[in-house]
This record gives sequence, C-alpha cells and structure tokens, in this order.
Amino acid sequence: MDMKMSINQKIRKYSNGNLIDTTDNIVTEFPITIFVNNVEFATMVCTPTHFKEMVVGFLASEGVIRFYREVESISIDDAAGYAYVKLYAEVTTNQQYYSKRFIGSCCGKSRQFYFQNDVKTSKTSMSKQTLTPSQCISLMKEMQESSIVFQETGGVHNAALCTPEKMIICRSDIGRHNALDKLYGYSILNDIPVRDKIIVFSGRISSEVLVKASKIGVGIVLSKSAPTDLAIKLADDLNITAVGFIRGTSFNVYSHPERIIER
Amino acid sequence: MDMKMSINQKIRKYSNGNLIDTTDNIVTEFPITIFVNNVEFATMVCTPTHFKEMVVGFLASEGVIRFYREVESISIDDAAGYAYVKLYAEVTTNQQYYSKRFIGSCCGKSRQFYFQNDVKTSKTSMSKQTLTPSQCISLMKEMQESSIVFQETGGVHNAALCTPEKMIICRSDIGRHNALDKLYGYSILNDIPVRDKIIVFSGRISSEVLVKASKIGVGIVLSKSAPTDLAIKLADDLNITAVGFIRGTSFNVYSHPERIIER
Repeated sequence: MDMKMSINQKIRKYSNGNLIDTTDNIVTEFPITIFVNNVEFATMVCTPTHFKEMVVGFLASEGVIRFYREVESISIDDAAGYAYVKLYAEVTTNQQYYSKRFIGSCCGKSRQFYFQNDVKTSKTSMSKQTLTPSQCISLMKEMQESSIVFQETGGVHNAALCTPEKMIICRSDIGRHNALDKLYGYSILNDIPVRDKIIVFSGRISSEVLVKASKIGVGIVLSKSAPTDLAIKLADDLNITAVGFIRGTSFNVYSHPERIIER
Repeated sequence: MDMKMSINQKIRKYSNGNLIDTTDNIVTEFPITIFVNNVEFATMVCTPTHFKEMVVGFLASEGVIRFYREVESISIDDAAGYAYVKLYAEVTTNQQYYSKRFIGSCCGKSRQFYFQNDVKTSKTSMSKQTLTPSQCISLMKEMQESSIVFQETGGVHNAALCTPEKMIICRSDIGRHNALDKLYGYSILNDIPVRDKIIVFSGRISSEVLVKASKIGVGIVLSKSAPTDLAIKLADDLNITAVGFIRGTSFNVYSHPERIIER
C-alpha cells in the first residue's frame, strides 16, 4: 500500500511584513531497509510510493538480480519500513565492493566507473531509437504536466519512461536515484523491453544518473536541467544521447546527437 | 590546487526550429577517493574545489575526527583524485556501520536516525542565536548574489556559513553533502565556533541535510527550497530552526519559530 507523498502541517509564515501561523503541504520522506535472504542489505530514504518497484529496481541496479524470476518473494512492512526479499539463489554480489572505487579500462576505451558494481551492470547502449526535436519537447511537457507533487511542494524529482510518441509511466521521489529505480523496477516487473525507450528526467544529469540510465538500458535521456562534464564523457562512451535544458521550445544535445533528427 | 568548476564544451543546440553546433558552459564533476591511514575509506564525486575542507568536513561528519589536531597529515593528489589522510590514532569508527540502520530512542525522546554513525555525531543544538525576518531574507540574497556558477551552468548547490549580519564563506558543489562538508571543514580548519552561526542553503532540506547541519552544530538553517516532513521532525527534536522557501520578501518557518523574531 502506498503512503502519502505529502502531508499538511502547521508552519509559521512571513509575508508582507507579518509572521502568521498557517498550514502548508510538506513532502514526505520515509526510510526503508531492505533485507535480502534475511541479511540487512541497504537503507534508502524515499518518497513512500511504489515500494516494490523501487526495491526490484534497486536490486537490479546493484547487480543482485537481472530478472524478476530470480525473486522467490518480496514482502513489504510499510508500517515499520522494512522490505524482505527472498531470492532463489544466494547473493553473489560482494557488498564490500559497493564503496570500492574501480579504475580501469574495458572494451578498449578508457572508462572510469566509481563502484565495482557499476562496472558489472553498466552497458553500452545498442539503441537505434531516434527522436525529432518536437518529440523531445513534447515528452518533457507531458511529464511536467502529469506531475502534480512538484508544483504542490517543490520537493521531488520526476522520471518517466516513454516511447517517442508518449509517456508510459512517471514516478516521483525526493531521491533522484529512487525515481529511476522505480522506473527500472516497473520495466522488470512488467517485462517491458527498454532499449527503444526514452527516460525523461526532471533533475540534473550527473554521472550517477547517467550510469543508472545505462543500467536500465535506454539510449536517450532527456532532462530539464544540465549535465555534468563527467556525465557527458560517460554518455559518449556508453553510446547514450544526453539532452538537457529542455525549456520552452529549445534544448541542448550533449552527446550522440545523431539520435535527435528531423524525420 | 583547485580545478575548474566548469568547462566550455561543444554542444548541439535546438532553438527557433534549428539544430546548430555551438559551445556551452558545463559544470565539472570529479571523483576523489579518501584513504585514511592507508586504507581506502570512501569515494566522493564532487565539484573539484576546496578538497582539504571537504575531506576534513567529511571525516568529522562521519565521526572519524573531531578536531583538526587529530590529523597528522593530509596530502591531495588532484591529478589522480586521491586524498591521503594520516591520523595520529587508529580509526575507531566501524565502517560496517555506515549503511546499518539504527532505530532506537535516546534522551527520552523518540528519535530515529538512519545510520549508526549519525547517532554518534548528531547533537541537539544549544544555540541561543536569533534572527529577524529581514536578516533571513538578506542572508539568502547575499548568498545567491555571491554564487555565480549556478547562474552560469544551472548545476550546483550553494551553502554558506553566516553570522546574523553577514556571510562568512560560501561553498558550491554538485553534491549537497559536499557543499555542507566544505563548510564544516572550513570551520574545523579555522577553529570557528559554529553554535551561534547560521547555515544558508540553496537546496531542499532533506533529513540528511538536517542531520548534517546538526553535526556541524548550528541552530538555524535557511533554505530557498522546501523541507521534508522527516527533516522537520528531526529539526523539532534536535532543536534546530528550519526556515524554507525564502523567496522575495517571504518565507516559512517549519520548526522552532522562537528563533525568528523582530527585535
């Protein structure tokens, strides 16, 4: 069961030179601890919706599972904030590697990932999908119009999985990673091929966001905001088209511009 | 030596119905791996400025050090992205606890922190500092006017350490934590008492930001953006005044409003 994404709460407001007591809508933040095969695995602080998608997406993104059929059961205790995942197999991912930096080159290029698990799960996009400029603009518009929480509380990131023509689903979270994990989990739970899909994102394209998009498997990432130089390098290397600053009727293409063409 | 916070790079721009090749300013993102007493401790992805402050602030915030005098040496290899920290003592913090959830109550109140190290380093504010409404507004204005990178690239968080009257320093980073760690490191390296200071922050006040402010030791946090419900609960409990949505001449006080008064 999903909990509330925002709640009403007492605040003191300063406006027109006066301090008055009133109420305001506040975005919620909820900790959820994931146990895998009875071992504490990780704690995420998130917007309390779509727990199952988020947990499945997170485990896939960490390289713990690849398909949903590897999961024997998932039960979520949302009162206490616990998710219990039982896998058919043992966990082979070494938790110690989570924070270990990995520096090396693979595939004959110089790639630098930060965590060993990323090396295992990031993949070069094979997508042949293309978008017209007006599709870039209308997908961003569609996602922004569909997400109400941001306007109400100013506090969440939105991410959407789309075809060139329309949005399939949109997920919101105070954590940028969680919003993307929810998309990833949705695609795994519903067995949706992602190679030809597009991710539309409200936040900045950092290296971590780019790596996550690569793990999910899309070839195009559209953002309202800016990328970092490192995200652009990774996008170049992982064959991902990064489009940013989609505002009004203009945008910037930062990598692999061959996918953004008039048809 | 600090590196560049942004670089100029080729992009393809779509505007007025045309795709043209041009250049744009891109915010940089840089990985730095910290070794403590020759053991790999953590990797942070950051804006490459003020490395020493950031490393010192991060170690303090993780409970590894309390004072700078505990540090025998710090050397930074900014070409490779490594920071080598030598402490006089052994590291007593258990790295295993970093991701371990801690649920418990202390001080007779019900507090829930997420990581064991937070329990050790968070502290209830004893600050008696107060601010007038116009000081809240002018400190936010001062920080925003002093930070150029955000306007140029749309990609960093800004955090400032202030007295009620003026800004002492401002630090920018693509990571909200790093910006706060740089402030923390600055105050430790320069032996600045923080209890009576104010943190001004450009981003949302999440539970993690609030906990970090509590570790640094301030009693008032001012933000341009919104807090989460959990951050407000923690602020209530840790005796911190959280002020958000400071825009133009209005703002909201979410906790301990007794510190925001006309004098």
